[in-house]
Amino acid sequence: MDFSWTEDQIAFRQILRDFSKKELLPNYMKWDREEKFPFDIWGKLGTLGVTGLRVHEQYNGSSASCITTGIAAEEIGKGDFNAAYAVILNGLIGEILQEFASERIKEEWLKPMASGNCLLGIAITEPGAGSDAANLQTKAAKDGNSYILSGEKSGISFAKVAHGFVVFAKTSPDEGARGVSAFMVPRDSEGLEIQSYHDMGNVPIGRGSIFLNDVCIPGDYLIGEENKGFYQVMNGFDLSRVLIALQCLGAAEQTLEETIEHVKGRHAFGRPLAKFEGVQFPIAEHHTWLEMAKWLCYRTLWLRDKGLPHTKEASMCKWMGPYLAREAIHECLLLNGHYAYTKEMPIEQRLRDVIGLEIGDGTAQTQKIVIARELIGKEFKPY
Amino acid sequence: MDFSWTEDQIAFRQILRDFSKKELLPNYMKWDREEKFPFDIWGKLGTLGVTGLRVHEQYNGSSASCITTGIAAEEIGKGDFNAAYAVILNGLIGEILQEFASERIKEEWLKPMASGNCLLGIAITEPGAGSDAANLQTKAAKDGNSYILSGEKSGISFAKVAHGFVVFAKTSPDEGARGVSAFMVPRDSEGLEIQSYHDMGNVPIGRGSIFLNDVCIPGDYLIGEENKGFYQVMNGFDLSRVLIALQCLGAAEQTLEETIEHVKGRHAFGRPLAKFEGVQFPIAEHHTWLEMAKWLCYRTLWLRDKGLPHTKEASMCKWMGPYLAREAIHECLLLNGHYAYTKEMPIEQRLRDVIGLEIGDGTAQTQKIVIARELIGKEFKPY
Amino acid sequence: MDFSWTEDQIAFRQILRDFSKKELLPNYMKWDREEKFPFDIWGKLGTLGVTGLRVHEQYNGSSASCITTGIAAEEIGKGDFNAAYAVILNGLIGEILQEFASERIKEEWLKPMASGNCLLGIAITEPGAGSDAANLQTKAAKDGNSYILSGEKSGISFAKVAHGFVVFAKTSPDEGARGVSAFMVPRDSEGLEIQSYHDMGNVPIGRGSIFLNDVCIPGDYLIGEENKGFYQVMNGFDLSRVLIALQCLGAAEQTLEETIEHVKGRHAFGRPLAKFEGVQFPIAEHHTWLEMAKWLCYRTLWLRDKGLPHTKEASMCKWMGPYLAREAIHECLLLNGHYAYTKEMPIEQRLRDVIGLEIGDGTAQTQKIVIARELIGKEFKPY
Amino acid sequence: MDFSWTEDQIAFRQILRDFSKKELLPNYMKWDREEKFPFDIWGKLGTLGVTGLRVHEQYNGSSASCITTGIAAEEIGKGDFNAAYAVILNGLIGEILQEFASERIKEEWLKPMASGNCLLGIAITEPGAGSDAANLQTKAAKDGNSYILSGEKSGISFAKVAHGFVVFAKTSPDEGARGVSAFMVPRDSEGLEIQSYHDMGNVPIGRGSIFLNDVCIPGDYLIGEENKGFYQVMNGFDLSRVLIALQCLGAAEQTLEETIEHVKGRHAFGRPLAKFEGVQFPIAEHHTWLEMAKWLCYRTLWLRDKGLPHTKEASMCKWMGPYLAREAIHECLLLNGHYAYTKEMPIEQRLRDVIGLEIGDGTAQTQKIVIARELIGKEFKPY
Repeated sequence: MDFSWTEDQIAFRQILRDFSKKELLPNYMKWDREEKFPFDIWGKLGTLGVTGLRVHEQYNGSSASCITTGIAAEEIGKGDFNAAYAVILNGLIGEILQEFASERIKEEWLKPMASGNCLLGIAITEPGAGSDAANLQTKAAKDGNSYILSGEKSGISFAKVAHGFVVFAKTSPDEGARGVSAFMVPRDSEGLEIQSYHDMGNVPIGRGSIFLNDVCIPGDYLIGEENKGFYQVMNGFDLSRVLIALQCLGAAEQTLEETIEHVKGRHAFGRPLAKFEGVQFPIAEHHTWLEMAKWLCYRTLWLRDKGLPHTKEASMCKWMGPYLAREAIHECLLLNGHYAYTKEMPIEQRLRDVIGLEIGDGTAQTQKIVIARELIGKEFKPY
Repeated sequence: MDFSWTEDQIAFRQILRDFSKKELLPNYMKWDREEKFPFDIWGKLGTLGVTGLRVHEQYNGSSASCITTGIAAEEIGKGDFNAAYAVILNGLIGEILQEFASERIKEEWLKPMASGNCLLGIAITEPGAGSDAANLQTKAAKDGNSYILSGEKSGISFAKVAHGFVVFAKTSPDEGARGVSAFMVPRDSEGLEIQSYHDMGNVPIGRGSIFLNDVCIPGDYLIGEENKGFYQVMNGFDLSRVLIALQCLGAAEQTLEETIEHVKGRHAFGRPLAKFEGVQFPIAEHHTWLEMAKWLCYRTLWLRDKGLPHTKEASMCKWMGPYLAREAIHECLLLNGHYAYTKEMPIEQRLRDVIGLEIGDGTAQTQKIVIARELIGKEFKPY
Repeated sequence: MDFSWTEDQIAFRQILRDFSKKELLPNYMKWDREEKFPFDIWGKLGTLGVTGLRVHEQYNGSSASCITTGIAAEEIGKGDFNAAYAVILNGLIGEILQEFASERIKEEWLKPMASGNCLLGIAITEPGAGSDAANLQTKAAKDGNSYILSGEKSGISFAKVAHGFVVFAKTSPDEGARGVSAFMVPRDSEGLEIQSYHDMGNVPIGRGSIFLNDVCIPGDYLIGEENKGFYQVMNGFDLSRVLIALQCLGAAEQTLEETIEHVKGRHAFGRPLAKFEGVQFPIAEHHTWLEMAKWLCYRTLWLRDKGLPHTKEASMCKWMGPYLAREAIHECLLLNGHYAYTKEMPIEQRLRDVIGLEIGDGTAQTQKIVIARELIGKEFKPY
Repeated sequence: MDFSWTEDQIAFRQILRDFSKKELLPNYMKWDREEKFPFDIWGKLGTLGVTGLRVHEQYNGSSASCITTGIAAEEIGKGDFNAAYAVILNGLIGEILQEFASERIKEEWLKPMASGNCLLGIAITEPGAGSDAANLQTKAAKDGNSYILSGEKSGISFAKVAHGFVVFAKTSPDEGARGVSAFMVPRDSEGLEIQSYHDMGNVPIGRGSIFLNDVCIPGDYLIGEENKGFYQVMNGFDLSRVLIALQCLGAAEQTLEETIEHVKGRHAFGRPLAKFEGVQFPIAEHHTWLEMAKWLCYRTLWLRDKGLPHTKEASMCKWMGPYLAREAIHECLLLNGHYAYTKEMPIEQRLRDVIGLEIGDGTAQTQKIVIARELIGKEFKPY
């Protein structure tokens, strides 16, 4: 057993920590107010090799391990929560495209994405379906050497800003999860309309609905085999769920650090806030919780790097990480008092942002169903 | 023991519930987006007798009991959290002015406020002092028949919109809490500057800082006796703390009701969300918590109506009410899923709004110090 | 709305509080160690009118309101948790016998019980059924003017010590809850065997299994109508659930009071424990929760006294009361440190005792199903 | 980073798991009822090399790493909580004796202990002092080539059964923590009296008070240097705190495993309990928390094995491990229902036992003070 980082990981973490502090944190609030995704930063992250962490060098990626990818999620999460989510989601998409997509897609989409020149989104959820893949209504019909996609996708991260989407649609409408295929759909496709939302948080990622009105895409924009789409993406969730947890923990760690500075400096009743047990105990508690969750995450990433089963562990990370991060950030907000309630300080934004990922990629309930299934047995599914 | 409402209270609750549903709830989000306080609504609330609940009829008020005032806080909190806070804060101010202010103030400020024609704020907190009255830096110097006020007040609710402020300043700078006096300060006083904040929530109440640059006010704008200001207001907190709790509980009850409708109608895995224990149990739990807190609040108001001690009880309400309301609203947000993360639904705003009153009027830590002092003894104060 | 007690209630509470302090508390631990039910105390409680609180004067009872009965549960719970449970359970049985039983039963069992000369138990649960009435296996067959009962009852409070039991058995085995009848079964009936348990707590109430081997009882020992037994008792649970909550809250209040004395007197690092926020804050928190739960309970009893619906409220009390009491007692145990871990102090016993009533009369899960059913609707039952 | 166990560790864990299942678990309850420490088991644990894990081979130990010692704490904790505590405490004592004791002590006490032929205790706490070393009242006076010890030690684990004790006493009474020395005191010393307690749990470890009435011990029974005793033992707490956490987690893991079997087999409302989300969700939650805490513990042990700072981490383990274990065991008790409330099942005993170590070796408050001190800074100590 060895909990040490490699020298490369230490150096990588330091680079990202510096980048976070210098380039991300000072702009974190600005990008929220301006409601725009920082494409220049995306390019810089590309230069650092962070936009294609899980992609091979031959496709402009950096072939990083899952653990190293976790470091990126955590450190970028400290500086800009939403940039971290772009890294995570494009990491998930990168894995899928690399393993299943045609060479054409790899050339046209994977390579630019891995270099930070292009941003992709993934479109699964639908208005009536949530995370229930069996009930997808979007259809993809073969038409000669093309596919015609029609339907509506909702709650899609980066809908407002991504250059293209991996879209899941039924190629065998009578089947459930076994009738779902994945397609590459360029943003500028004819018949594709986007309606973006006004969200509580995660503003720069521009969540929205995508309407596919007989969108025609080339045949080799099918990703992998027909009807296997759901299974291709499921495995990826076991990575993105852990990375999301680390992203949230990073945001909380940063907040806790800022809060410690605040309570050291601010006085009440003649002494620093930090000297009150009512102040220092919650800090000690949240620090403990965040540390515990962090090691659960890195262990899960290690399992994945080793090719060992980790579905249960990924779901444990996903419900715990955002939950504990939100609890810590909320407590820090209160410990900072009136100051932290203004938009002059980043804490309120972190709270709004983290809540988005308590929901996105599966709520706590969904994760607990997975954990119970793996722990107790499939035959005890509650429904 | 009798937990029933009087017929008048039932009728009053129904009127407010209807008003909340028809006039407030449909505009709750709009006023947040427009960042403005709804003065027309304030006028209508005046017509309903709600702006001067704790004020005698002779000053245009309705002489309501504390319990009846609690009904208003709860019901208006369901429709518009921020209007409810205006009712509460002006209720507190009304009590102070009525008991301590000169007839001139009562004519010029109390009467219009109680009719809904004028909105007042209260300015205690300062940048370096929080809720620590002994350390106030703002000074009021007697100058002939006037007072000259100078200093800075921060975190003042309604700073952006109120017509006047009850300002606390040191008349005996060498004394602690015993050197504080209260003054009526019109918004348009020369030398008064306001800087409003951009806050996470409570947007329409326009929190801000008030800078008093040698503001001159007439001598009979002193409220009560010199150096008694702190003690005049302290008693009022024991009311406002309970009303804030009920305001928060009202917002949470409304959210829970909306959430129950949502989970009844929305399906997953072939059945309504409401049929999952993972969904219905948290609803049952939060309903229980809210009910418990509600009766704690009404009992505390009853104690106040009877003239019985209730400082400890008021602090119990203040830390518990906002805490439980925020917990419930957050859980409801998650139960509503992706939908509730948008600004199309009021839940995210309620979460942002309620957090403001986890801080305002004393954090949980402050309340627990009070509870412990009353329960264990003054001699065991922690500092 | 009126939260005051009547003069009679104040006097009654004082009598019981004195009795608790003088007669119960000094022996609370002894009865646990000796594993015996204090029948002499039962007689004294009879003299005080507490053994037949819900029974009419004509049957030796005191016709107390539910609220007054709640006072008894809370105050006796402070002195001896297990005596309080006897009062509650015999209160429930008294209500049933009075309303449904034959005059013979009333003469032979209700009257002596209400005078404190006899103790009764109630036998519903079975090894395979938990609180699932539809699945009872115990049968009662009519045989001339008698009934022959056969089957096994498990987890029966007072099995070891009660003089007789109200036993639920199927008179129509093919029906579910609609085939259940209730019978009076004397302890010394031929064919009745008792096996008592060694339990974690609640030792003096001697929980055990009752084996009915063709036990023959007279025809007028049927309680109420055939096949109505389940419905006769269900209503009673809505009372006992609230009383159990108050019993648990009483035990917790007493523990908190003892703990406050301890932390005032014990020093660490040069000052009383009570001066540490890490000590006084949890005390303030638990005091708040206990107060909240208490008013929920008394309001529910008021609803019952008024004949208003209170099934949901009773279930809220039942999951909350024992839960909060156990949390408070556990925290107090820790705050008392090494001392409270010994059997020289009553805290560890209270913890063991209260856990028994987190389970007995329906776990939290059962209560939440009831709350959700009443709040959301029967059609959303989870199973 | 590598979360895998060595082959030796895997084999060692399996041996202990088997031993736990075959030799410990079947007797766990018996030793509690008989109130005796299983010395025959202690001998068998000696044969397995578990009684001297942290001791060099030259003193009959097995020179195990801290991580391997953690495995022992966790696995033995699954079978017999109290045997695990003996392993941990004697591990702590072994470390101290090996590093600081005279050769005579090593021959006479360390070697037999490491072989499982002798059991030692450690006596620090005193009636008035808790974990406040500066205030110790027990004195050790040099008398020629001997020391005369007098004073009272309270809350001493294994007081009833250990063959000897490491006793802390003031050699420089006017100093605080800097005046404390450690001594080896045989149980059969003249003037040594033991009064054992009746405790809630941890019964076989026979906690008690030790009265030292001018107990004379040889000069080379001083352990290490005079006045350095406190600093010699402090470092050891950073190990024992982690091991205690793992011991508690082991007990909870075992309980969770048993509970999963129970809810799979037991039916309510026509289906297995395990199919209810109200049952499977808490299991999933507690499993997550236990996993998180476990990796925090093993990482802390790794820090210690590497010689890296870990005081903060050890305190995080100590408050979290027993806390989460107790929460899990309590929930499992409720999920097992009526059955688990009897002494036929081990769950209630595990609950009683774990609570002992929420207190022993420092309460949560003590640990949070340490965490805050390390995280925020020594200058913000609350007292």
